[in-house]
Amino acid sequence: MVVSTDNLKGFILALLSSAFIGASFIIKKKGLKKAAASGVRAGVGGYSYLLEPLWWTGMITMIVGEVSNFVAYAFAPAVLVTPLGALSIIVSAVLAHFMLNEKLHNLGILGCVMCITGSVIIVIHAPQESTITSVQEIWMMATQTAFLLYVASVIVLALVLIFHFAPRCGHTNVLIFTGICSLMGSLSVMSVKALGTSLKLTFEGNNQLTYPQTWFFMMVVLTCVVMQMNYLNKALDTFNTAIVSPIYYVMFTSLTILASVIMFKDWDGQGEGSIISEICGFVVVLSGTILLHVTKDFDRNLPRNMYPPLSPSLSARLSHGNGELLKHAEEDVISPEEIGLRRQELY
Amino acid sequence: MVVSTDNLKGFILALLSSAFIGASFIIKKKGLKKAAASGVRAGVGGYSYLLEPLWWTGMITMIVGEVSNFVAYAFAPAVLVTPLGALSIIVSAVLAHFMLNEKLHNLGILGCVMCITGSVIIVIHAPQESTITSVQEIWMMATQTAFLLYVASVIVLALVLIFHFAPRCGHTNVLIFTGICSLMGSLSVMSVKALGTSLKLTFEGNNQLTYPQTWFFMMVVLTCVVMQMNYLNKALDTFNTAIVSPIYYVMFTSLTILASVIMFKDWDGQGEGSIISEICGFVVVLSGTILLHVTKDFDRNLPRNMYPPLSPSLSARLSHGNGELLKHAEEDVISPEEIGLRRQELY
Repeated sequence: MVVSTDNLKGFILALLSSAFIGASFIIKKKGLKKAAASGVRAGVGGYSYLLEPLWWTGMITMIVGEVSNFVAYAFAPAVLVTPLGALSIIVSAVLAHFMLNEKLHNLGILGCVMCITGSVIIVIHAPQESTITSVQEIWMMATQTAFLLYVASVIVLALVLIFHFAPRCGHTNVLIFTGICSLMGSLSVMSVKALGTSLKLTFEGNNQLTYPQTWFFMMVVLTCVVMQMNYLNKALDTFNTAIVSPIYYVMFTSLTILASVIMFKDWDGQGEGSIISEICGFVVVLSGTILLHVTKDFDRNLPRNMYPPLSPSLSARLSHGNGELLKHAEEDVISPEEIGLRRQELY
Repeated sequence: MVVSTDNLKGFILALLSSAFIGASFIIKKKGLKKAAASGVRAGVGGYSYLLEPLWWTGMITMIVGEVSNFVAYAFAPAVLVTPLGALSIIVSAVLAHFMLNEKLHNLGILGCVMCITGSVIIVIHAPQESTITSVQEIWMMATQTAFLLYVASVIVLALVLIFHFAPRCGHTNVLIFTGICSLMGSLSVMSVKALGTSLKLTFEGNNQLTYPQTWFFMMVVLTCVVMQMNYLNKALDTFNTAIVSPIYYVMFTSLTILASVIMFKDWDGQGEGSIISEICGFVVVLSGTILLHVTKDFDRNLPRNMYPPLSPSLSARLSHGNGELLKHAEEDVISPEEIGLRRQELY
């Protein structure tokens, strides 16, 4: 087992990022609850949470998390960092159990174990990236024919989805909005990685800001992240989190891995065994995610979460950065007593 | 990825074994149902199933399965063959879905996916065994100090459990009976492997039946398998299958892996990464097993399967061989209509 120093740094940053992002949901939810006690609930259009320091603490925690996620991409391959995003779901489920009294179902614990096991498999088999010394090197990778073909097909596909399918069946088929944001997401991760690497080199004293490529990548990051957030929020607004999250996780992670494999040739030095193991690890994390989301429904009341109309609150809509957008634990305020009551009804 | 020919043979035999054993439960259950239609149900002491050809077909299928399991041990390491025993649960769950109309819960399908994924991880990282040329070689391995210490502690522990704990808390603590049969199980797999290898050598023309060691191993196989079956049936008779199966799976597989690692030094040539991956694969299969068993309860009625008093029928008690004893799908006859009714109550 050879886990390189850079992969280890990236791994630790990805873990920290998941911890911060996972915690931020809980802190913000606590803030929303406190605000709801004194004003109008966010779910019905209130804004009193903006006066609540706890909500802002949550917002800052989330930003710290997104930044460490961003930095993680500068150190480790996307094939390693992206799937680990699912760990933030565990953090928020476990914290919700202890701090919000939203008891984890036993199968939810099994889901956590699986996410962790899958992540271990992914980390062990992650490829090592060749050291990059300038943004121009990344530019060469980004302009190789294979990757340009990938970018072109992503853009064409996204445009077809946006202009042809979204107006027709965007509100009935969950794959349209999640598809658009997964396609854009794979491009934003690649550009985030390019930008992160050049900033890392700049901080190391090797200034990359003089190259136009750095600024180009920054523009791409902004465009892609904004589009990705926009369509993710549409998806969350239209469909239930428990449906959107696993679908989005699998599409976003698969496309990102595909993009990374094409652009950074992650799998070129890898044996078949490692590649298959990595895919298995990814399937395991995905299964854990599904299990966590599905059993979240078990412990509240079934019909409420079984069907779409669960509009996430404004704060949930504001809170999604790039990378691990999955963990918008439902942010509308439900009192613990209400949950307790519902659980009693079930058993 | 280097999967050796012998490992591949062992893997295919283990798969076949799981397929046969998994199918045998369904065939026998069909037989029991037919018999129940014309006579007294097995669950209340009837024996009319003994006149039912379908039940005997199931019995034969099970024996074929156990034999291929036995042969699998002669080719591949126990670290590979034993965990794959869980696959028979999938086969019986899937066949029950199509043939007995016992619909799989969606989470049950997820459980199947996990068992398969975990098995792939285990197969990829399984160690290769050094070629054995005579039963005396195995005898040397079995009489090395480390393994003799293991055998001695297993026997002492089993005796303490049988004579001290079983009479006191065997009927309240599920770990006593399952512990005894897991301890004996690890010895029976080791002796099955020894016996299987010498029979394999004999069939290849290198007669091993002239050595007393071969006959000694045969005696050990008989003793251990009989004890293991006896205590497994006690465990199943006292506690619910959904509780016994995962606990038994994890204890039996862990102890078998431990025994195999000590006796055959399976992990000596392995990197840390492979060993960790193998353990992860094992955790994944275990999680899948738990998920399949737990969700089986979801689709029937909850209280019935939540608590112990579910005595398995005589046929279930008769049907357990060595290796994959987990898949005694409940064999008492429930009509599909009854299950359908209960499912409607739940949703």
